Amino acid sequence: MSAAIRLTPLRGVPLVAPGDDLAALLAAAAERAGISLRDGALVVCQKVVSKAEGRVVALAEVEPGPEARRIAAEEEKDPRQVELVLRESARLVRRGHGVLIAETRHGFVCANAGIDLSNAPGEDMAVLLPEDPDASARRLRDALAPRDARLGVIVSDTFGRPWREGLVDVALGCAGMAPIRDARGESDLSGRELQVTTTATADQLAAAAGLLMDKAAGIPAVWIEGVAIEGDAPLRSILRDPSNDLFR
Amino acid sequence: MSAAIRLTPLRGVPLVAPGDDLAALLAAAAERAGISLRDGALVVCQKVVSKAEGRVVALAEVEPGPEARRIAAEEEKDPRQVELVLRESARLVRRGHGVLIAETRHGFVCANAGIDLSNAPGEDMAVLLPEDPDASARRLRDALAPRDARLGVIVSDTFGRPWREGLVDVALGCAGMAPIRDARGESDLSGRELQVTTTATADQLAAAAGLLMDKAAGIPAVWIEGVAIEGDAPLRSILRDPSNDLFR
Repeated sequence: MSAAIRLTPLRGVPLVAPGDDLAALLAAAAERAGISLRDGALVVCQKVVSKAEGRVVALAEVEPGPEARRIAAEEEKDPRQVELVLRESARLVRRGHGVLIAETRHGFVCANAGIDLSNAPGEDMAVLLPEDPDASARRLRDALAPRDARLGVIVSDTFGRPWREGLVDVALGCAGMAPIRDARGESDLSGRELQVTTTATADQLAAAAGLLMDKAAGIPAVWIEGVAIEGDAPLRSILRDPSNDLFR
Repeated sequence: MSAAIRLTPLRGVPLVAPGDDLAALLAAAAERAGISLRDGALVVCQKVVSKAEGRVVALAEVEPGPEARRIAAEEEKDPRQVELVLRESARLVRRGHGVLIAETRHGFVCANAGIDLSNAPGEDMAVLLPEDPDASARRLRDALAPRDARLGVIVSDTFGRPWREGLVDVALGCAGMAPIRDARGESDLSGRELQVTTTATADQLAAAAGLLMDKAAGIPAVWIEGVAIEGDAPLRSILRDPSNDLFR
C-alpha cells in the first residue's frame, strides 16, 4: 500500500431497473473505459444494486400502521415512508428534529433505515437497502471475475455521522477482500508495536469512491487501482458487537 | 468531479521534531516526487503537525490528579495518559471496556481525546492534537502556495466510529477549500431535487489518503489530484451544533 492509487469513474451505465443484469452493465462500462477488473476494487453504489434486485416499493401501495402514523405526525414525515423504515428496522436508535436513526435488520445504524426517495424510478417510489449487501457484492464479484482473480467488490451508501455534518460513503457489503486491515504486531518507525490495530479499508475505499459518485452525473460505480486486495470476509464482520458498543 | 482521481504518497519526509519547518519538509518531498502542489489537496497526518508544533509531552512530567487516578484504576489505563485526556477534553462522552471517548476542546469526539502514545519520539511520550488544526492547515497552506492558487490542505487523523470496528481517517482541520459540498438545489437524473444535501468532502479526502498513510512505512502526507478545490472554510464549521445532535 505505498504506490499511487487511481480512481476512475464508470460512465454510461444506463438507468437500472428491477431484473437488470447489473454485472453485465458494469462489465460493459468497464470495457468501454478500457478497464480490466483485476487487481483492484470496484465500488458500486447501493442504489443501483437495490434497483437491479427489485428492492423498490411504490409508496402508494404502503399502508402505514398506527405506530408509523404516530411517529410521522410527531416528526412531520410521510407516514408511508415511516412505515417502510419500521419494517426495515430492528429498532429506532434515536429520533428528533424530523430525523429517524434506525438500526436496520442488517445491523447498520443510519437515517431512515437507508431508504431513499430521491432518484427513484417515478415520483413516489422508495428504494430499500439490499436484503443482504454482502451477498449482493458476492454475486457481482463472482460474475465479474474468476475466484482466483484479485477483485474486491464493495456495495456502498452515503451515511450521516454523529457529531459531524455532511454525508460520507461507507461500505454495506463486500466480497473478494477483507473489509478491515489488521496491523497488530507491526511496528512503527521507533520499533514500538502499533497501538492502532485495525483500519476499515472497505470504508476508506467507499469514502474515496464517493468523491466521484456524483448523483447528478449518473456515476454509479468507481474503479480503484493501486490498493492491496487481500483476504475475503463479509462486511458484516466489522459491525461492532453490541456488548462492546458504547453508543447503543 | 468526474475525471479520474490520483493519490500519490509523499515519501522521504524525515522524522519530525518540535520546531521543524514542516511546510519546507513537505515542499521538498513534493519536489522530489515531481509534484506541483497546485489544483489539488494535500492531506497531512496530524501526528507530524503536532510534533512540529511541539504538542509533545513526556509522560514522566505528568502528575495525575485524583479524577485521573480513579478513572485510570477503573479502566486499567495509565493515570498519566488519563490526566492528559482530561486536560485536553471538554467532557467525557462515554467510557467503558478500557476506552475513554472524549469530546476535545475543539469539539471532536474520539478515543483518548486523540492523544497517541505510538510513534512518539522516545518511549514515554504522548502526542496531543494540534491546539487549532484549522490554523495549522492555514499556516501550511499559506507557506506552500500563494492565496490565489487552488490548493487545499487537510490535517487528518484516524478515528474510531460508533457501531463499526476499524479506524477511518477524518479531517481535523482544513484551509484553502470548503470541507463540505452542498448539493442542495441540484437535480438528480429524474429531475427531482436531491434530498442528499451535503457531502463531507474533507472527510472523504482524508479517508482516501488514509489508504496510503502507512505508519510503518512513514508516509505522513498524500497528494490528491482530480478533485475540485472550491471555497474556503474551516473544518470546525462542519462540527454539528449540539442542539441538533441526537448523540450527545
